[in-house]
Amino acid sequence: MDLKSKIREINDFPKEGISFKDITTLLKDGESFRFCIDKIVEDLKEKKVGIVVGPEARGFLMGTPVAYALGAGFVPVRKPGKLPAETVKYEYDLEYGKDCLEIHKDAIVKGQRVAIVDDLLATGGTIEATAKLIESLGGQVVAIEFLIELEFLKGRERLKDYHVNSLIKY
Amino acid sequence: MDLKSKIREINDFPKEGISFKDITTLLKDGESFRFCIDKIVEDLKEKKVGIVVGPEARGFLMGTPVAYALGAGFVPVRKPGKLPAETVKYEYDLEYGKDCLEIHKDAIVKGQRVAIVDDLLATGGTIEATAKLIESLGGQVVAIEFLIELEFLKGRERLKDYHVNSLIKY
Repeated sequence: MDLKSKIREINDFPKEGISFKDITTLLKDGESFRFCIDKIVEDLKEKKVGIVVGPEARGFLMGTPVAYALGAGFVPVRKPGKLPAETVKYEYDLEYGKDCLEIHKDAIVKGQRVAIVDDLLATGGTIEATAKLIESLGGQVVAIEFLIELEFLKGRERLKDYHVNSLIKY
Repeated sequence: MDLKSKIREINDFPKEGISFKDITTLLKDGESFRFCIDKIVEDLKEKKVGIVVGPEARGFLMGTPVAYALGAGFVPVRKPGKLPAETVKYEYDLEYGKDCLEIHKDAIVKGQRVAIVDDLLATGGTIEATAKLIESLGGQVVAIEFLIELEFLKGRERLKDYHVNSLIKY
């Protein structure tokens, strides 16, 4: 299946010089969407995943169907202030400034096997932060799955300690 | 299955006097999560749904696994500025002030059969706005599905022209 033809590229969004990969054109096509989820699930089949973690908000779009198909639980990672119970925070550097992500303190049981699923691997900062949050709770990151990988940004190097898989490469 | 026991109630979140229904404790339990998605899918089985629409961000958590299980496409409804291509907006009144939601203009084809899926029915304002957006593109809202319904807020009266189903009632 030619998945790249299902992605809409939008120039200068959200800022000048960026060619945004719009996945909504793929998601609205039921056949392509199911194909992608099944491909990710196939890569996770032998990993004995108990929990799928997805970062807000597009990670929710890919992560929950993967969790459903595996029969695993789903745990959201969110921006500060969104999760209602006690959280663990992780602050990380952006090109300009800082960002912060949170996970519920009781979201993951020590030793649990966790897969991270997100829509897009760029520099890998968000996903590295997500992995650190999971590990701080005692979870084991057994795989990281992306719909899209921007290879020229070399995010995979930052995640070299993990099993990383992506379906569409630019 | 006693689904209510899987929901965590958090008092005074996000503000005083509100008992927040935290669904993350249900989502992280793979068996309960799958049970809920299957229950929603069962209610939609005869509805010939082509597209599932979910409002940002918790609607993504419930809507995408339902779309996957049905073999339908998924379309996100988001806050202003998040969707990269041309959108239609719908502004609606809140208790204090206004809110606005957007959908991609090409997200739904005229006559397409659409189910809206969200985590929680409160006053129904967000879902009414979501239905209006779908209808403005020519889509037909054939069902609205919730994980939780706060019956005392009477959101169902606001949605009386639609088929409405919820799994957990307060």
